Order: sequence, then structure tokens, then C-alpha cells
Amino acid sequence: MSAENIDNPISYEILEDLEDDFEEVELELLRQQAKLTKDLYAKRAKVVSEIPNFWPLVFEQAPPDIDEYVQPTDSAVLLSSLVNLSVERFELPNGDPRSISIKFEFSENEYFENKVLEKKFWWRRNKDGWAGLVSEPVKINWKADKDLTSGMLDLVYQVWEDDKAGKGDDTEAKKKLKSQMESTGLDGVSFFAWFGFRGLSISEEENQAALKEEQEKRKARKEGKEDEDDDDDEYEMEIFPTADDLAVCIAEDLWPGAIKYFLAAQEQDALSDINFESDEEMDEDEDDAQPSKKRKA
Amino acid sequence: MSAENIDNPISYEILEDLEDDFEEVELELLRQQAKLTKDLYAKRAKVVSEIPNFWPLVFEQAPPDIDEYVQPTDSAVLLSSLVNLSVERFELPNGDPRSISIKFEFSENEYFENKVLEKKFWWRRNKDGWAGLVSEPVKINWKADKDLTSGMLDLVYQVWEDDKAGKGDDTEAKKKLKSQMESTGLDGVSFFAWFGFRGLSISEEENQAALKEEQEKRKARKEGKEDEDDDDDEYEMEIFPTADDLAVCIAEDLWPGAIKYFLAAQEQDALSDINFESDEEMDEDEDDAQPSKKRKA
Repeated sequence: MSAENIDNPISYEILEDLEDDFEEVELELLRQQAKLTKDLYAKRAKVVSEIPNFWPLVFEQAPPDIDEYVQPTDSAVLLSSLVNLSVERFELPNGDPRSISIKFEFSENEYFENKVLEKKFWWRRNKDGWAGLVSEPVKINWKADKDLTSGMLDLVYQVWEDDKAGKGDDTEAKKKLKSQMESTGLDGVSFFAWFGFRGLSISEEENQAALKEEQEKRKARKEGKEDEDDDDDEYEMEIFPTADDLAVCIAEDLWPGAIKYFLAAQEQDALSDINFESDEEMDEDEDDAQPSKKRKA
Repeated sequence: MSAENIDNPISYEILEDLEDDFEEVELELLRQQAKLTKDLYAKRAKVVSEIPNFWPLVFEQAPPDIDEYVQPTDSAVLLSSLVNLSVERFELPNGDPRSISIKFEFSENEYFENKVLEKKFWWRRNKDGWAGLVSEPVKINWKADKDLTSGMLDLVYQVWEDDKAGKGDDTEAKKKLKSQMESTGLDGVSFFAWFGFRGLSISEEENQAALKEEQEKRKARKEGKEDEDDDDDEYEMEIFPTADDLAVCIAEDLWPGAIKYFLAAQEQDALSDINFESDEEMDEDEDDAQPSKKRKA
């Protein structure tokens, strides 16, 4: 019996089992939500495709958790060329509803050749008990001298290819990426670096084995046996370490709230117009009237 | 045709109808969630009732949106005497799933006589198109000189009784409350002032009439007719103006996440113990070793 049980008549395993049961319900609700909103999102996509600048205006009003990652140049790219955004829980109906793909569609622009950038996040579990979103880097075909990540995204992609080819830890790309990350840091990194996120490296086989192990642990817990947890090694060369949180924020806030954010952008524009007009009126008033007290002083 | 339609081929009414449809799905999901979690919450209540200080520890780890309202004295009250918290979507199965009641249960304490403080929030709509949570003040029977709201909650309650009795706008209680609010402001107001929140005054009849009107408007929109909106008068003498947001945060974050927050509190305690021990060890090391550079300087 562990130390905490001296104070607590309840073991932590009971609490963990309860959390597991709540998690099951949340997953079921995500599945229901996907089913119940499918046609509505299709209808929305059709409607908003006829509204000029719908998605750029949505991003303009994005909540702080997203907005903090959008640099002024990123904003310019989105404003000039983002024509569609879509989010899909792509492992449904049978897989994990927490796996999400986020697809950006662009018109011709001066920064990159891609018309579509799609980033997929898989909900995976590893043998140490860690569970969360993992991904693969997405290559962006930058136009000459227009790479908003200063070559980092290309390096991340090359490192990933090297890793897949089993090239070990001291490839050219790894050395370059490491030195660039150390020398420049990640402050003010472009939103587009987000496409480079990998997260923990967990294969589908490892995921399945971990899921099985977790189910056995759960069973063992219910039979009163102990379990143990280890710590995980984070992937070190991540140029956008919070990409998974940002993905969830896009999928669970920006995407469902898009009409709300668009309407807020419209309202903001209307208010700016009013302020602009009343500023003009005030100026006229001031010209006609006596100098104000401020001017006198 | 309104001005915005010159730029936009899509009318705002279509977007509003879509938002209404999404809202319907969200309500359905809330109903499902309530149904699917009912037994789990009952089980959790039973389990955590055997854990000493479960709810005070949950509050100790509450997210910033809640924690910012809990003053040090409030914290002391919760820590010494909060024995249970429960949240119910009390208008289910037939009413609005957004109506919530939040019930605090206390042991004997030096601040007030109440063993139970229950605050109910009704999701209501008024004829101007506003929809949100409204409530009624809850009386707290403070012990002598222990009123954490310095009399404001009592005044709010008296004003509410006066309003119900139709006593008009210049009662003794209203004058007192107004002058106290003006002189002291609401900075650092006790968490317990939250029990005084009223929100807009909307009777059940008005709510039903507004619901009916809204449905007719929706129908009219679908038939291509225009609608209009008015602005709302906020209730002025609110001693805890953001009480509705706080209620939602308790119901949708603290309440479902209680085990997570409790485990975080336990981990924090464990970490404090480790730090405490390693601090001691460090002190010993320092005593044995050469004076540090810092001491030399």
C-alpha cells in the first residue's frame, strides 16, 4: 500500500478508473457531435464559399490562443490568399474521434506554390502511458526568397526523411536545424512553422500495443493490481512545440465558431467606419468652434 | 436590401439560421451528456465523499477564470468547511439544458449558519432577442461581524424583495446599496457576493413569449422577411456582474475536471515536500562545504 493511502481511504486507481469512464463518454459525445454536425458543416462550407474573405476575416478575429502565433506577414498571406479552411475528424467512424486533420486552401500567392496545405494529427498512445496528438511535417514549396520559416521547415522535413531512412543522429540536416534553432530561437516564428510539428514518434503498431496494454492495466486495476508510469522523452527538434494545442484550438474554437468570428469582424468594420466618420465630424466641429481648452493651455 | 448585401451575395439571415441549427445540435449534445454522465457523477460523489478535503483541494487548483474571484478569506472558508459541491442541469429532461444549479455544502464554520448554499441560473430569453443566464439572490445568514460582503449581499436581497413587492426605485435598501457600490467599488469583492447575482429580470411568461416570438422570427427569416434587434438594459445594481460566466466556468470546467484538479493538488503537495526536503539537504550541504561565491562577495 502506498503512502497516500494512509491519509486516503480511497485509492488513486478508483479515481483513474472514473476518469477513464468519463473519457469514454466524452469520446462518445465527440462521435455524436461529428455525426450531428456533418450536414450542417457541409451547408456552411457552401454558404461561406460565396462570401469574399470569409476565412481571412475569421482569422482576423481569432481568439488570443491562436492570434498570438500569427505574425504580421502570416496575416498578410492569409488575408490575400486563404480561400478555405476545413477540419475533419478523419479516423471516424471507427477510429479515435480526437484525431483531426486541418486543411488550408489558398489562391495563387507570392509566397508558396501549394494550393492546399493539410496537416493531420493522430491521437496516439505510447507504451509509457503518454497519450496525445502526433503529426508529420508538411512540406511547403516556397517561392524564391519567400520562405517565412527561414529554411527551418525544409530542414524539419529533411530530418524526418532522414529519420525514416534510418540515417542516425548526425545527418547534415539535423546539425543545421539544431544550430539554427539554437542561434535564432523560436520567438516570432511564423505560423507556417506549425506545419513542421511531429510530436512523439509513435507507430500505429506501437499505438495498438499500448492501447492493448492500457486495457490490460485497467483490467488489472479493477482486479486490485498496481500499475506504474514512466516519463516520456519529448522530441527535441520541434520548431513549433505547442502545435498540438494550437490544432485543438483551431478545431474546437475557430472552426465551430467561424460564423461568430466572421460576424464580429463585420461589426468591427462597421464600428471603425462609424468612428472614422465621427472623427471627421469632430474635426469639422473643432475647426468651426472656439479653440478647445486643451489648445489654449 | 441592406448595404452589406451589395458586397455579399449571402444575407446575414442565412448565417443566423445556420448558427441556430448548430445551437440546436449543441443543446442535443448537452442533453446526451447529462444522460450519459448521470450515473458516473453519482459514483464520483460517493467516492470523493470519502476523501478528506477533496473539494477544497479542487478549488485550490481552480483555473484562473475561477481563482481570480476567490479572495484569501474566501479560500480559508472553503478550505475549512466546504464538504460538497454539485452541479445539476435542473430543467432537464424537458427544459433548457443550459439552466444550471450549483450547490455548495458546508460544515459548521465561523462565518455563516447555512449548511447549504444553492444558486440557480435559468437560461432565459427576452423580447429584445437577448438570451443568457438569469438568477435570484441567495441569502447567507452571516454570523456576527463575519459578513464577507460587508452587508452588500443583504442589501441585494432586500432590494430584490422590494422589487418583488413593487416598491419602486427609491427604497432605503436601493439607496444604501447604490451608495455603497459607488464608494467601495467591486475590486476584491468576496466570492460569496456571487450569490447576489440577478441578471436581467425575465419572468417565465416573458421567456415563453420571447421563445415563441423568436420561433416566428426564424420562420419569417426562412420566408425572406427582415427582423430587428434592440439593445438591452443591464441590471445596474449587480455586485458580481460576471457571475453568469463564473457559473458556466464552474459547471463546465471545475465540475467535470474535479478529479484532474484534485490529482494536480496532490502532485503539487508531493512536489512541495520534495522541494522542502531538497532545500534542507542543500542547507546541510552548504553548511559542510566552503562558503559560496555569493557569500564571499
